[in-house]
Amino acid sequence: MDTLAAYKEHLREIGKLESALSLLNWDQRTNLPRKGHPARAEVIGKLTKMVFSLSVSDKLGEYLEKLQGQDGLTEVERASVRVVGKAYLRHKVIPPAFYEEYAIAAARSETAWEEAKEKSDFELFKPHLERMVDYARKFAEYYGYDESPYDALIEEFEPGMTSAELKTIIEPLRSELVPFIKRLMEEGKRPKDGFMQGTFPEEMQRTLSLKALSAMNYDFDAGRLDQTVHPFTTTIGPSDVRITTRYLPHNVLSGLASSMHEGGHALYDQGIPDDLRWSGLDEGASFGIHESQSRMWENLVGRSRPFWTFFAPIAGEVVPQLSVVSAEDLYRAVNIVKPSLVRVEADEVTYNLHIMLRFELEQALITGEINVSDLPGLWRDAMKRYLGVVPEDDAHGVLQDVHWSSGLFGYFPSYMLGNLYSAQFFAAARREITDLDEQIAGGKLSELLAWLRENIHQYGKMYEPKELVERITGEAPNSSHFVRYIVDKYTDVYGLR
Amino acid sequence: MDTLAAYKEHLREIGKLESALSLLNWDQRTNLPRKGHPARAEVIGKLTKMVFSLSVSDKLGEYLEKLQGQDGLTEVERASVRVVGKAYLRHKVIPPAFYEEYAIAAARSETAWEEAKEKSDFELFKPHLERMVDYARKFAEYYGYDESPYDALIEEFEPGMTSAELKTIIEPLRSELVPFIKRLMEEGKRPKDGFMQGTFPEEMQRTLSLKALSAMNYDFDAGRLDQTVHPFTTTIGPSDVRITTRYLPHNVLSGLASSMHEGGHALYDQGIPDDLRWSGLDEGASFGIHESQSRMWENLVGRSRPFWTFFAPIAGEVVPQLSVVSAEDLYRAVNIVKPSLVRVEADEVTYNLHIMLRFELEQALITGEINVSDLPGLWRDAMKRYLGVVPEDDAHGVLQDVHWSSGLFGYFPSYMLGNLYSAQFFAAARREITDLDEQIAGGKLSELLAWLRENIHQYGKMYEPKELVERITGEAPNSSHFVRYIVDKYTDVYGLR
Repeated sequence: MDTLAAYKEHLREIGKLESALSLLNWDQRTNLPRKGHPARAEVIGKLTKMVFSLSVSDKLGEYLEKLQGQDGLTEVERASVRVVGKAYLRHKVIPPAFYEEYAIAAARSETAWEEAKEKSDFELFKPHLERMVDYARKFAEYYGYDESPYDALIEEFEPGMTSAELKTIIEPLRSELVPFIKRLMEEGKRPKDGFMQGTFPEEMQRTLSLKALSAMNYDFDAGRLDQTVHPFTTTIGPSDVRITTRYLPHNVLSGLASSMHEGGHALYDQGIPDDLRWSGLDEGASFGIHESQSRMWENLVGRSRPFWTFFAPIAGEVVPQLSVVSAEDLYRAVNIVKPSLVRVEADEVTYNLHIMLRFELEQALITGEINVSDLPGLWRDAMKRYLGVVPEDDAHGVLQDVHWSSGLFGYFPSYMLGNLYSAQFFAAARREITDLDEQIAGGKLSELLAWLRENIHQYGKMYEPKELVERITGEAPNSSHFVRYIVDKYTDVYGLR
Repeated sequence: MDTLAAYKEHLREIGKLESALSLLNWDQRTNLPRKGHPARAEVIGKLTKMVFSLSVSDKLGEYLEKLQGQDGLTEVERASVRVVGKAYLRHKVIPPAFYEEYAIAAARSETAWEEAKEKSDFELFKPHLERMVDYARKFAEYYGYDESPYDALIEEFEPGMTSAELKTIIEPLRSELVPFIKRLMEEGKRPKDGFMQGTFPEEMQRTLSLKALSAMNYDFDAGRLDQTVHPFTTTIGPSDVRITTRYLPHNVLSGLASSMHEGGHALYDQGIPDDLRWSGLDEGASFGIHESQSRMWENLVGRSRPFWTFFAPIAGEVVPQLSVVSAEDLYRAVNIVKPSLVRVEADEVTYNLHIMLRFELEQALITGEINVSDLPGLWRDAMKRYLGVVPEDDAHGVLQDVHWSSGLFGYFPSYMLGNLYSAQFFAAARREITDLDEQIAGGKLSELLAWLRENIHQYGKMYEPKELVERITGEAPNSSHFVRYIVDKYTDVYGLR
């Protein structure tokens, strides 16, 4: 077997084990009986270790070295060698013993966080979080960086992005959004939503989600919809991209939005072509680009006026009490803005401010500008400054998210970038599909999907996010499209002028 | 690490991969979207190969050799070395290239069988079946045997059993059952069951199954009940033993029986203690012993008069139309005997004759006494002789079962042995639990389960089936308990005297 064939076979081996791992993880959250968890953890641990060994094996190192200088590779093969090679070098520098030590500490830290959150007692979590910050800094040293150790961590989620660039992107976002939200709350007219009150059976909500996903052209022959406490999307293999959602008994829109969000993620993975499978390129370009797809379908489509022109009669058929509500009233009701304490409950206007706060705190933690013990106070100050609300306890403040507890620093910005990219992409799509609103109002979402497939999905991980954004939109990633989208939309919804 | 620790670690590695494999297989039959099948086959192929390599690795061979002569092993460790060692030698003699060639031919053969069954055209299947018989003979030669090549094949399913012994066990069964069934049909009074007619929603049938499984003390925290076309039980890991069932819209008893059958299998695996996990002993003693557990719960319990004394009011609550039927009438209705063409639809009286026929044909095929082309005719003759019915086409005759198409010869006897063992075990349980019928009539099934746990489940695969049967019942495996059970029960149900 020549080097290229051996290299591809090696990646296929990793791909197959990762497929088994994805299923083990999906099943753990959907079907696994209570007493099955301890053994499942061992099985997952075993397969994770096997995948890791294969990802940093000397054999792979040799293949990569040979192929990096080899002529005659296709564009896909070159991209594969580049992406896999980058990950190889990144993971190879971590001593296995250090990684194992970290993994054990992270598991303990997550357990401590759960208890601390339940009791709203930051002190219980503090020593663990300090340890996680230490580990993150050590990881950054192993990985290496030019300017800030935080950059070495972002790289895992948003290749090529730096904290300096993030700050440039964020600045106008903050300076526009903070006063705009203040104005919305003080001068705007909150849409009415009394007609949304009620109790909505799960089966009814599931039907509603299925109708929305069908309209989005989610392929049910290559996926399925289940229910979990925390919704997620997982790609188990080619043509097996599963989503989960959750239904709140008294809020029929929440489950719908969650399904459309996960459906957006799933459309991305369903759109990655077969010739990228098990090549190291069969995933999204980055966490941020992935989030752009979920947020586009959830918000730019799912919370748009044209969508509700199309979807209101369907919603009325499924949910009898909505059959007497106008499309316009439904559109307004799904776009109520309310500065709140908890990120996962935030609307699209205030959401990014929750992220900014986390980004600022976590990068200051990693660079050492602040200490873990400063966090609760700094959190409250920032909430007051950005959103005008202050948590009464840490459970609804600094303890609300799981990410830091397992050492995930540099992850949060992807959520914000996803929002910004989604608006930037949507503006580009609108330039090319001139009657996009009319199409959506007619329930035709296929041309938008085809555009996403053509411009984003088909490339998988071949391009870094910045490169991809520039190719498609002709601009560097920026916040101006998002700001314009938010200001225009909510000026109208809240009758600001 | 000493040899014993290294050996155990090696088995744990196999156990973890097998756990992942079990989940991949379970999911394939319960949840996998249509388009996900091709990739799933590749993932399953990969993990199967890994497990096989580990099972015949030279390293394992060295461990086994050292441990076979080592003092100071516990009884469990000695049993593990014996059982794993036996499988090691058995699999090691098969050349990997031969096995792969067989696996490909078997997959093709199964596909051909599907088509042949659909068209009821034996000729389409014939060349494949001839090939499968050839492979089976070659496997037998590789494995080795004393008297008959068929013995080498039975060993896979029923360790220690031979065709000579099977014939001894079967002889009285045939000579008693064939005339008894004739008498039943000619002189007996068929119970009435008009009250069973109707349409029964899935949710109702599921509730009924859940109530029966709860009464059996199936642990839902260590398992779950799903729906598939062909019901099965799978053990994914310690404390994760899942069952599936199927509901026929017009037959409420069929799904209940199927659930109790699979529940019986599951109780066995849930009862295997933790210290046997991933030791090579964490499964049933044999296919026949496993089947004895499913058939005991399905038939000796689930189709008994005391069970229906207990369960009739519950069935009446769940299925309104049954609330007016007496326990006695329900008991009789679940015990209707009807010689029929298809094994999987057979009642407990005629079932074994379906198996005998298959056993006689398959062992004659393997020893070369008959040819594949003789099969359809021989099948019809035997059906006529044993059950007095003759299939009009091969789809309802020789083509009905999947087993032979993938080369599974020696498997069918387990079904019959399961029935015989179940009666033999139940008679022993009844001797020790003197008020067993009263307990069952009172819905107390826990003491029977405790007896099974104590005598069978706790040992996993530590004993060979014959040894286990003798330890528990004081007799060699035989058909007399089963014959007595059948004759006594149906003489009463059919009012023969």
